[in-house]
Amino acid sequence: MPPTDPSPIVDIHTHIYPPSYISLLSSRSSPPQLLQLPPTSPDATPPPPRLIILPSDSPSANPSTPISHLGRPIGPEYSSVPHILSFMNTHHITTSILSLANPWLDFLPPHESAPWAHRINTELCTISATSSGRISAFGILPLTAPLPSILSELSFLTSPACSPHIKGLILGTTGLGAGLDDPALDPIFSALQHPSPLLLFIHPHYGLPSEVFGPRMQQSGHVLPLALGFPLETTIAFTRMWLAGVFDRFPGLRVLLAHAGGAVPALAGRVGSCVEHERGFYGDGEGEEEAVEGKGKGKRKRGPKRSLETVLRENVYLDAVSYSATGVKAAVEVVGRERVLFGTDHPFFPPVGGGAPGEGEEEDWTSVTTNVEAVKNAFGPEDVDGIRAVLGGNAIRLFGLDVESGDKR
Amino acid sequence: MPPTDPSPIVDIHTHIYPPSYISLLSSRSSPPQLLQLPPTSPDATPPPPRLIILPSDSPSANPSTPISHLGRPIGPEYSSVPHILSFMNTHHITTSILSLANPWLDFLPPHESAPWAHRINTELCTISATSSGRISAFGILPLTAPLPSILSELSFLTSPACSPHIKGLILGTTGLGAGLDDPALDPIFSALQHPSPLLLFIHPHYGLPSEVFGPRMQQSGHVLPLALGFPLETTIAFTRMWLAGVFDRFPGLRVLLAHAGGAVPALAGRVGSCVEHERGFYGDGEGEEEAVEGKGKGKRKRGPKRSLETVLRENVYLDAVSYSATGVKAAVEVVGRERVLFGTDHPFFPPVGGGAPGEGEEEDWTSVTTNVEAVKNAFGPEDVDGIRAVLGGNAIRLFGLDVESGDKR
Repeated sequence: MPPTDPSPIVDIHTHIYPPSYISLLSSRSSPPQLLQLPPTSPDATPPPPRLIILPSDSPSANPSTPISHLGRPIGPEYSSVPHILSFMNTHHITTSILSLANPWLDFLPPHESAPWAHRINTELCTISATSSGRISAFGILPLTAPLPSILSELSFLTSPACSPHIKGLILGTTGLGAGLDDPALDPIFSALQHPSPLLLFIHPHYGLPSEVFGPRMQQSGHVLPLALGFPLETTIAFTRMWLAGVFDRFPGLRVLLAHAGGAVPALAGRVGSCVEHERGFYGDGEGEEEAVEGKGKGKRKRGPKRSLETVLRENVYLDAVSYSATGVKAAVEVVGRERVLFGTDHPFFPPVGGGAPGEGEEEDWTSVTTNVEAVKNAFGPEDVDGIRAVLGGNAIRLFGLDVESGDKR
Repeated sequence: MPPTDPSPIVDIHTHIYPPSYISLLSSRSSPPQLLQLPPTSPDATPPPPRLIILPSDSPSANPSTPISHLGRPIGPEYSSVPHILSFMNTHHITTSILSLANPWLDFLPPHESAPWAHRINTELCTISATSSGRISAFGILPLTAPLPSILSELSFLTSPACSPHIKGLILGTTGLGAGLDDPALDPIFSALQHPSPLLLFIHPHYGLPSEVFGPRMQQSGHVLPLALGFPLETTIAFTRMWLAGVFDRFPGLRVLLAHAGGAVPALAGRVGSCVEHERGFYGDGEGEEEAVEGKGKGKRKRGPKRSLETVLRENVYLDAVSYSATGVKAAVEVVGRERVLFGTDHPFFPPVGGGAPGEGEEEDWTSVTTNVEAVKNAFGPEDVDGIRAVLGGNAIRLFGLDVESGDKR
């Protein structure tokens, strides 16, 4: 669409490690951690530190690899608001909704979790409040803390101090430790139901057990865990929520699934069919049968009551981070064109072969232009309304963004 | 399309446990196995045996569950040609290409594998040869046997005795034990390259480690392992093959991916993007750089040479077993409409709430009508050519089927 079309572009999938989180990672000796590198000569600037978020990238897992080759280099684009604004300007992004990148606070012991969440959320509110309307944020919850601490932080996020800036929550797939289908999450899901303004952004981090990628996994670097492990983790987490009846108990819960929902759009038909054919969900004719949506001949006694198709169209949003028109089309088909939202996944997937980390904000990122093209190609040149909706209009409406009030450059 | 449209329907994803395989399973005391049940009274017919193919369904994994509730009941529809023909007639299927169902011979010790493969392949050839042209088959290889035995069975399958009937090979994702990206498979892939008439039908069985489905997996029966584990296993297996350069070394290899390729169509863009952004695939400017297809700015030194898009359009076929128009559309988009092939997954997913196993051949199976509707809806009523191609025309051309010669009922 840019630069000729002035329609707003909103980036709802874009990450930050704010300064407090950088200090947290720097203080750690196991993943997630930041590894500092010594300067190559006494007068030289030290090379950028290495970010280790996957255990498979840790020094202990790679004893013969130099630290300078582990994980990824982390430059100012991970934390610096000017760098973020520069990147936004390059790609004509009007507004970004920043979220803490994985693995969030999942690794903290219970007593450390709540103060860190509060510090980071406060920082995100401040960044947003001082951005002239160009930045909003998804907050985080201290999920390893006791439930009252979690609910207390949730109240803070919807307080007048935060609510103009915090549009939702980002979280991983472990929940309180036993997955997002854990009934112990019910008080949190209950608090997040409409009319809560907060939407739940479900994002992967753990991928799949490395054994599924086989003994040659390392030969393709991060491709298998990132390209497949991440979206398949999200697919499984969401399907487990639906199967466990989360959307039956909390029909007002709204979730945003990362990476165009992974395999959810492609496999929704199969999941629905398997539920209809699962004999364990059918009774033997005794007892009361509950009404359920579905095509099956018998009446289901157990299993989710609201069909997967319905939940996708009423409770689910998908980002458009799929790098292909096929992925965007599938997303649009299962949730509707008004529920798919553009994102970049910045600062991950920077230009390859460029300069030092952080120097690439003023050049086009292929990862971003690929996703913009995917949206355009999914709708085709005739359907400008569809393109505008996914690139920005949907997010503006959903999050109540005031894109006119801010300084756009 | 049926019953008003007389265009041929070909079912390329339909399974059989031929009598020899039934006897093999019946002789075993651990999965895969057939559990016989005693008659409920001295004069009664014994209930159908239970088929246990997933270790999670075994008696040892479920010590408090009665045998009559383990696995699935297995009736004559699993082995009986008359039942198969009756099912085909009900659904207006002109021709079926039968394949041994999972887990094939993966579990056999090396010395038992080759004779069983030969016995089963011979049986499949006989079934096909005596079917008046209505049945063809995918053969199997004794993958746990020494390589010369495997190649010898492959020669048998392309011999004049078999070649009119055997259209390809079905196999799981373990290969020789280390995955389909194992270089030890190269002699087999080499033998399967064009002009070999045999196509490789890659089918899941192992799913994903159950830990990813969490502690509540059993509450939804087989839904998570079957609906997600199966297609995600296929997705990973194929992606590993591509990443390992199998299609660079064997550009004439043709593969058919089960269940519409699982998540491959939806995630192909992400996989390609992750490869382009994987710094480990780029050199430091030294050494010879090889030409590769791709969008990246730098020149890749390692990783697959032929792009995923190219391989999908030149080496891959997908079945249309996705239970949704969205899945069929995504499949058609990534491989082309001439490379998507209708299938039923018979005898799995029979009508629910019907009579005893094997009694349902004369009623419409919802699982089948759902997949027929998915194909029709993927193309829309105006595109009859697309519907006919996927329902039958593509398979007739690809496998050289003579649908006119046979007795159709």
